[in-house]
Amino acid sequence: MNKSVRIIGIDPGLRRCGWGVIDAQDNRLRFVAGGTLTPPTDGSLASRLAILAEGLEAVLDQHQPDEVAVEETFVNAGARSALILGQARGVVLVTPARRGLLVAEYAANLVKKSVVGAGHAEKEQVQLMVKTLLPTATFKGADAADALAIAICHAHHRVSARRMGMVL
Amino acid sequence: MNKSVRIIGIDPGLRRCGWGVIDAQDNRLRFVAGGTLTPPTDGSLASRLAILAEGLEAVLDQHQPDEVAVEETFVNAGARSALILGQARGVVLVTPARRGLLVAEYAANLVKKSVVGAGHAEKEQVQLMVKTLLPTATFKGADAADALAIAICHAHHRVSARRMGMVL
Repeated sequence: MNKSVRIIGIDPGLRRCGWGVIDAQDNRLRFVAGGTLTPPTDGSLASRLAILAEGLEAVLDQHQPDEVAVEETFVNAGARSALILGQARGVVLVTPARRGLLVAEYAANLVKKSVVGAGHAEKEQVQLMVKTLLPTATFKGADAADALAIAICHAHHRVSARRMGMVL
Repeated sequence: MNKSVRIIGIDPGLRRCGWGVIDAQDNRLRFVAGGTLTPPTDGSLASRLAILAEGLEAVLDQHQPDEVAVEETFVNAGARSALILGQARGVVLVTPARRGLLVAEYAANLVKKSVVGAGHAEKEQVQLMVKTLLPTATFKGADAADALAIAICHAHHRVSARRMGMVL
């Protein structure tokens, strides 16, 4: 039996940033915590990003994850939305990386495939499967569910991802 | 005579991030330092962003600016490039903001207008005018010149920007 690994999944966003923490030991997963950071929508962009970073630091301090998983952003929106999301995403990637944590990235359809079994699942299906895979999970909203799905995806792929040099 | 204010201008980028520090006292400007951060192009995105953040921290530690100015990104590239630039930009905004520094943003054409007198200047004109306005400046490359131009723009606009609530 391998050592238990604590994983945090993060679904980046400037207004709503979902996070979900699980413990993974071999093929057993256990829900630890989940939630959504909602930085204020007023103030300068820099101050909003700083509040997002401080919220992430607080979650990392509280739950002390060993590894981090973030969804790769599928860019089908305009360049302006991509820039805004990119800014939040930069903060989400850099905050744990500066603590020396491994940060893995997964394509959205791989995340969905890992939890639902299909790459084009609806948000509701993802939420339902997250609750099935993590029966003790108590979280609100789609952002935390998505973040937990990303953590589950990493639990499934972390060994092969490491082997393929996909991660830090 | 007002107190001298130390300003750092930053031109965000993942491969090349220009920075330039000046001291501004009333309408007198003095060059302090300038350079370009060039994080490695290999490794995970998170680790590259962490190296960018650490480079910025080192510059902030060394030069102890009072205020920060960053160019607002003009998004005319595709969504994919905007996402990549956004990620670097998020790191550039959040790193000084987390130190409690004021971070102002300026549109690219306002920056050019501030140093060259026209909103559509060429890179070479910007470099030439930066050297004219900061005769003691010693820096290499367009990225550091752009960053110094952003710092000069902030020196010109900081009082009115504060008054208009444009900044942190």
